[in-house]
Amino acid sequence: MERAKIRLCVEHPLGAGQAVPLDADQAHYLFAVMRLAVGARVALFNGRDGEWTAEVVEAGKKRGVLACLEQAAPQLAPPDLWLLFAPIKKERTDFIVEKAAELGCARVLPVATDYTNSARIRQDRLQAHAREAAEQCLGTYVPEVCDLQPLRKALEGWDPARRILWADESLVGAAETLAGLAPGPWAILIGPEGGFSEGERTWLRGRDFVTPVSLGPRILRADTAASAAITLWQAALGDWR
Amino acid sequence: MERAKIRLCVEHPLGAGQAVPLDADQAHYLFAVMRLAVGARVALFNGRDGEWTAEVVEAGKKRGVLACLEQAAPQLAPPDLWLLFAPIKKERTDFIVEKAAELGCARVLPVATDYTNSARIRQDRLQAHAREAAEQCLGTYVPEVCDLQPLRKALEGWDPARRILWADESLVGAAETLAGLAPGPWAILIGPEGGFSEGERTWLRGRDFVTPVSLGPRILRADTAASAAITLWQAALGDWR
Repeated sequence: MERAKIRLCVEHPLGAGQAVPLDADQAHYLFAVMRLAVGARVALFNGRDGEWTAEVVEAGKKRGVLACLEQAAPQLAPPDLWLLFAPIKKERTDFIVEKAAELGCARVLPVATDYTNSARIRQDRLQAHAREAAEQCLGTYVPEVCDLQPLRKALEGWDPARRILWADESLVGAAETLAGLAPGPWAILIGPEGGFSEGERTWLRGRDFVTPVSLGPRILRADTAASAAITLWQAALGDWR
Repeated sequence: MERAKIRLCVEHPLGAGQAVPLDADQAHYLFAVMRLAVGARVALFNGRDGEWTAEVVEAGKKRGVLACLEQAAPQLAPPDLWLLFAPIKKERTDFIVEKAAELGCARVLPVATDYTNSARIRQDRLQAHAREAAEQCLGTYVPEVCDLQPLRKALEGWDPARRILWADESLVGAAETLAGLAPGPWAILIGPEGGFSEGERTWLRGRDFVTPVSLGPRILRADTAASAAITLWQAALGDWR
């Protein structure tokens, strides 16, 4: 069976013969925008049951039902990598969340640092971006996008078993690399334009579970730094090996 | 001497005591937009002489002159890496060029592949993007952005001494990695949405100087793939080591 081109992330359980009702947005997308009819094939995933090929059995204006035919790909667990980043301008914040989903993060935590300009984010919009990126990149899971919280609050009760890879701008040009990182749960921490405050830097430097890392000899924008750090982690410890 | 915050890429030679005339755009930016006055400090680079701290000695509406004071950073030669990419939507094409400049490429070659939708690019606009990215990331060189050319033409007279790292979507999930790449001049080749045609794939597979590589288990967008491939090359062979 050829793999279906249109992919949808759903909440519903997936399994052989399982009927999957669509919500109004999904029905609109499939039947009004993509003009699918009864009998058309769609790929479904829900973050738990892998990817399933499903067939349209009911197509209405605001509703519809798909029936699962067979599993097209197994569930691929996300690498245990979180991304902590300070929101920047809207478009680049969207890109960071998209890249985190494509490159492979389990969880995305927007954090407000001392030099963060954005006082709020649209969590629901960012979560939708992550879902769309997962649908597009053939992923079978969607990283959870958390609401914005202060960096200090996020780090106060931090489980030290999850090590933090800190993109430290003061190390630009240093020879630190990601070779030799211990396997296990990790998080990447990317600062805003302007970097971290001296108070934040002192706190981070004093924590055993924080590993500062250099991302080359140039100062990268926050979105470039996020992509680069995730890429290097994936190649060293993640599912790109 | 504190490093100047505003950085400009100029054509003029730089050296101790050297007077550097500004063009109308640069004068407008410094004196109308940034409101600098005589005596203010600016960082200059030209891709050859490193970064110089310069002082405004003449500030007019459409003209101005700076005088070089001292060298603030040595010239950093670009790693010998080229990026060949198929132009996609405007915004994402802009991002690819920006990332190539930040992450460190010497040359950017937009190529039209069998599945490329964009028949033309604005080379001058993309070159300006590369210059701005270099000014922002503390780079001392600007990658040359070439005009769009057919992939086949770019590869016809290709010097086989420059190896090509080909992001081959059919290898998604394979265990190929960049470890063990030979040092030397390289180029990265990134396809458009929809990947390469069967004819292109056959041609590429038949070339000794082309090394296919996997970028993990998910299908990456072209802009994500470009950033990831440059990052991995820089960490393996470039100036991030």
